[in-house]
Amino acid sequence: MAQLRIALAQVNPTVGDLDGNTELIIEWTRRAADRGAHLAAFPEMVLTGYPVEDLALRTSFTEASRRVLERTARRLAEEGLGELPVVVGFLDRRADGRPLNALAWLHGGQVLVRSAKHHLPNYGVFDEFRYFVRGDRLPVVRVRGVDVATVICEDLWQDGGPVAVTRAARAGLLLVVNGSPYERSKDDVRLELCARRAREAGCPLAYVNMVGGQDELVFDGDSLVVGAAGELLARAPQFADHLLVADLDLPAADPALPAGTAEVEASDGTTVTVDRRVLTAEPVPPYTPEPPEVAPLLDDSGEVYDALVLGVRDYVRKNGFRTVILGLSGGIDSALVATIAADAIGPDRVHVVLMPSRYSSDHSVTDAEELVKRQGLVARTVPIRGMVDAFEAELELTGLAAENLQARVRGMILMGLSNEHGHLVLTTGNKSELATGYSTLYGDSAGGFGPIKDLTKTLVWDLSRWRNAQAGSGRGGLFPFETEPIPVAIIEKAPSAELRPGQLDTDSLPDYAVLDALLVDYVERDLGRDALIAAGHDAELVERVIRLVDRAEYKRRQYPPGPKITPKNFGRDRRLPITSRWREPSAD
Amino acid sequence: MAQLRIALAQVNPTVGDLDGNTELIIEWTRRAADRGAHLAAFPEMVLTGYPVEDLALRTSFTEASRRVLERTARRLAEEGLGELPVVVGFLDRRADGRPLNALAWLHGGQVLVRSAKHHLPNYGVFDEFRYFVRGDRLPVVRVRGVDVATVICEDLWQDGGPVAVTRAARAGLLLVVNGSPYERSKDDVRLELCARRAREAGCPLAYVNMVGGQDELVFDGDSLVVGAAGELLARAPQFADHLLVADLDLPAADPALPAGTAEVEASDGTTVTVDRRVLTAEPVPPYTPEPPEVAPLLDDSGEVYDALVLGVRDYVRKNGFRTVILGLSGGIDSALVATIAADAIGPDRVHVVLMPSRYSSDHSVTDAEELVKRQGLVARTVPIRGMVDAFEAELELTGLAAENLQARVRGMILMGLSNEHGHLVLTTGNKSELATGYSTLYGDSAGGFGPIKDLTKTLVWDLSRWRNAQAGSGRGGLFPFETEPIPVAIIEKAPSAELRPGQLDTDSLPDYAVLDALLVDYVERDLGRDALIAAGHDAELVERVIRLVDRAEYKRRQYPPGPKITPKNFGRDRRLPITSRWREPSAD
Repeated sequence: MAQLRIALAQVNPTVGDLDGNTELIIEWTRRAADRGAHLAAFPEMVLTGYPVEDLALRTSFTEASRRVLERTARRLAEEGLGELPVVVGFLDRRADGRPLNALAWLHGGQVLVRSAKHHLPNYGVFDEFRYFVRGDRLPVVRVRGVDVATVICEDLWQDGGPVAVTRAARAGLLLVVNGSPYERSKDDVRLELCARRAREAGCPLAYVNMVGGQDELVFDGDSLVVGAAGELLARAPQFADHLLVADLDLPAADPALPAGTAEVEASDGTTVTVDRRVLTAEPVPPYTPEPPEVAPLLDDSGEVYDALVLGVRDYVRKNGFRTVILGLSGGIDSALVATIAADAIGPDRVHVVLMPSRYSSDHSVTDAEELVKRQGLVARTVPIRGMVDAFEAELELTGLAAENLQARVRGMILMGLSNEHGHLVLTTGNKSELATGYSTLYGDSAGGFGPIKDLTKTLVWDLSRWRNAQAGSGRGGLFPFETEPIPVAIIEKAPSAELRPGQLDTDSLPDYAVLDALLVDYVERDLGRDALIAAGHDAELVERVIRLVDRAEYKRRQYPPGPKITPKNFGRDRRLPITSRWREPSAD
Repeated sequence: MAQLRIALAQVNPTVGDLDGNTELIIEWTRRAADRGAHLAAFPEMVLTGYPVEDLALRTSFTEASRRVLERTARRLAEEGLGELPVVVGFLDRRADGRPLNALAWLHGGQVLVRSAKHHLPNYGVFDEFRYFVRGDRLPVVRVRGVDVATVICEDLWQDGGPVAVTRAARAGLLLVVNGSPYERSKDDVRLELCARRAREAGCPLAYVNMVGGQDELVFDGDSLVVGAAGELLARAPQFADHLLVADLDLPAADPALPAGTAEVEASDGTTVTVDRRVLTAEPVPPYTPEPPEVAPLLDDSGEVYDALVLGVRDYVRKNGFRTVILGLSGGIDSALVATIAADAIGPDRVHVVLMPSRYSSDHSVTDAEELVKRQGLVARTVPIRGMVDAFEAELELTGLAAENLQARVRGMILMGLSNEHGHLVLTTGNKSELATGYSTLYGDSAGGFGPIKDLTKTLVWDLSRWRNAQAGSGRGGLFPFETEPIPVAIIEKAPSAELRPGQLDTDSLPDYAVLDALLVDYVERDLGRDALIAAGHDAELVERVIRLVDRAEYKRRQYPPGPKITPKNFGRDRRLPITSRWREPSAD
């Protein structure tokens, strides 16, 4: 066995910011060196940020990535970090110009070896067949007498390919660089997968993941190390930048194994070239290992809440905003969005507008005012009556058209203030509303980012209660409100859009607990009508909700982005035709 | 040689409408039978419509498609059409449940043979790796003594696979079923491709394409037949339902070739199973062929214009609307959209709203009124002053925020009338505006469908002039206006948004001829900064336009859909991160 101290840099790059990401690599390599690490590793495509989408198809971008990779290697050496081997993800291309999702080993001011992702995911949020061609090499680099094999993200999730070759390559450590977005409960799946692959590879496995928000995606970090038997050795916290340092006892490399390449059948119909390099053959002299760091897992609500806070913070910051604005109605949705925003960027940068109408109840206004006071938000009131009257003087609008008018006047007020003062408009729609079309296009759906667009209403209530329970607890990652930030009256009142007298959500929709369970099965699990009924949902409700969801498809396409917390949401990972006559069969 | 009369049914199915599409197949098979055809063929996935996107992942939909396929075979027989072999595209699945983009031969009330697309396109508008798994069979069916091989769309465009096997399979005719969307000048590429593949296959090639609008796609038809040397034998008109009947002299099948399967290496690393069936061995007794039909090609402007008209007509019709509404400003963009809509659904179903502000010039109002009179549109006037005043009484908006306010008041008026009366709102933004962000989110960009969203401003003028030149010509596919539908003053005036006094587009943007050429190179060809300058564009303008286009990315995501006429447009076929720091390098 040979000792090795590895440092997994769970960092937050920004897509397209090659210079900024280079600085990130240098800074965190220095931290790794300061901790005495023998090997440092960064996430998938850390140099370019991830995912780069169509930027991968722009030659100027690919060439810049390649150039900056070489420069980063030189910079590391200039900064006195050249002796520490560093593994980074970047955007490469083949000789024929086709893009590669690649990694490189940097050492001594040089790029030592490169390889590219073998399995290209093309489901859910991933479109990698569109952008990349497949790689077919497994670099195995000897570092202080340990043979370290390196692969990229999806290579771990699919059978066959470079991971399948790791055992035959007799690697002492399998290092995986990842850009693996957060989904509810994905942390459990991820650990199990790492354990299984470690057992298959016959050696410990180190998994380094990205952290941070990128458009709708939130990368949760959760970097970890498992032993050869699959046992958890080290784990980084979720949703935070972190350097996970782990002292490992690893199988020593066989000195007789020569450097060079060998082709190995990869159990998926392809052949992988094992590319064996020797960097440093001599093991590290024996040293006393540091105690292993295993961050506790977050509870389920805390995990989702942290994902939303990080998603909002990074969307605001990475897009160059300093403040946000939203309409505060006195209802639960806008109350939760305001609270998330306050946690993300501080209450003094959260602007809220109270926009009462003739149908607003007294408690709506007072509840909203109470929330503003508790959190210290920047508030103003703009009554909408005069503007609604001006429209009604020219147009004969009734029923839904009149209700939508009120929502649109509010949307225009927020957009006007956004244009005038540079705030990012946050929308307050939740997933249950989005799914059923219970919102106004260009009204409450108008804005730049939707923090709770992937939360069912049930989850909106759960998280509001959870957030209140954290008040005064000193829990990290939240603004230190000492009292409950959300007035309990807001959580307990019956939900209403207040667009006509005495209106309640339950006038038009079933109980949210019932509705949400059905929506999860229809939207996320793609069950058809018969399967939904077989799963225990009420047949009449199934018919009705299917109609609502299918009809609302177009409206949802025009919603702003927001953090994803489920495997299948609306927008880019749910792609349905707008024009479609398909109706789930109502009887067979 | 053996004679064969084939009928290519260039029809317009609707996505999801399995019953309606079945009726379409029966009706057009009857027409083929009435014309004495020996073989009828329908487009790719005609039974389900195309593309079905995520419906392919819903088990209930796949099962319905399979069930309806069997029923269609029986229905054809019941209708006395069972003896005519019919080739149709449909959605199938493998035994493991994974979806297939498939075709079937129907005959005698039965499904004779099935196969699935081998090459799955995953670029531009296509996402087929997401939905389908690859097929690996080439059906070769003997019809009246001719061996007919059948493949699907992309199989024709890529090297290797079933088309590469056609010669070895000694087919007498290669039949290709397609769902190939329109792009400018694609018709020329398509004919060349068919000619090349016919020569490779060593036999004539029949190409049947879909026609009609489906969300942003417009299928142009252009079904055709080429001889074994690649010569054009028959061609259907574009943008119209059509039965293309062709009498062909084809190589007679070798009677010694046995039915059954054989595996053939397919020149793309895969093996294709040739699945040989004998339906009718006996050739057709000699008959006098009909003269070949070769529809003339449309001129370039006419082709684009017809695509837009069909795109609008089908979006309105297939989504269940009867009327449209749009704002008529007196400018060229709304004038052209109104005219396209009048051609698509008739002027009496086109509602226009004149919404003058304090900055509207007199000629804007009179030009708009003149257009209404010439075309017979349904018009009303709603001055926006009172509503703008009501907002300004509550909010301090200046500069761009004040300009946007006016556009948003107009958007709200149109949406209000749409909600009240059920009109589809058409937006009037063009691609040059869209690209540079020269439009107001939730203002002029609010609406359900954008007929000219893929037209540069230059093309907007070209098509307006072209359309005026058709007045009184009797050209098909257009409303028979006897005089020029667009007042020439609208075409000739300098473009202005009229959101502040004396405003002109040229205050903020360069000359459109210059701008548009640059936009095509940046947006459609994805050239980076240096490549754009090398292509002859002004360096300073390149910097400026790149900034504008990159910044407008988010706004464009919230635009409504509209017909595509270029290979790379905004929305689903241009996928850029919103959050991105990538800026084309300004010096190297």
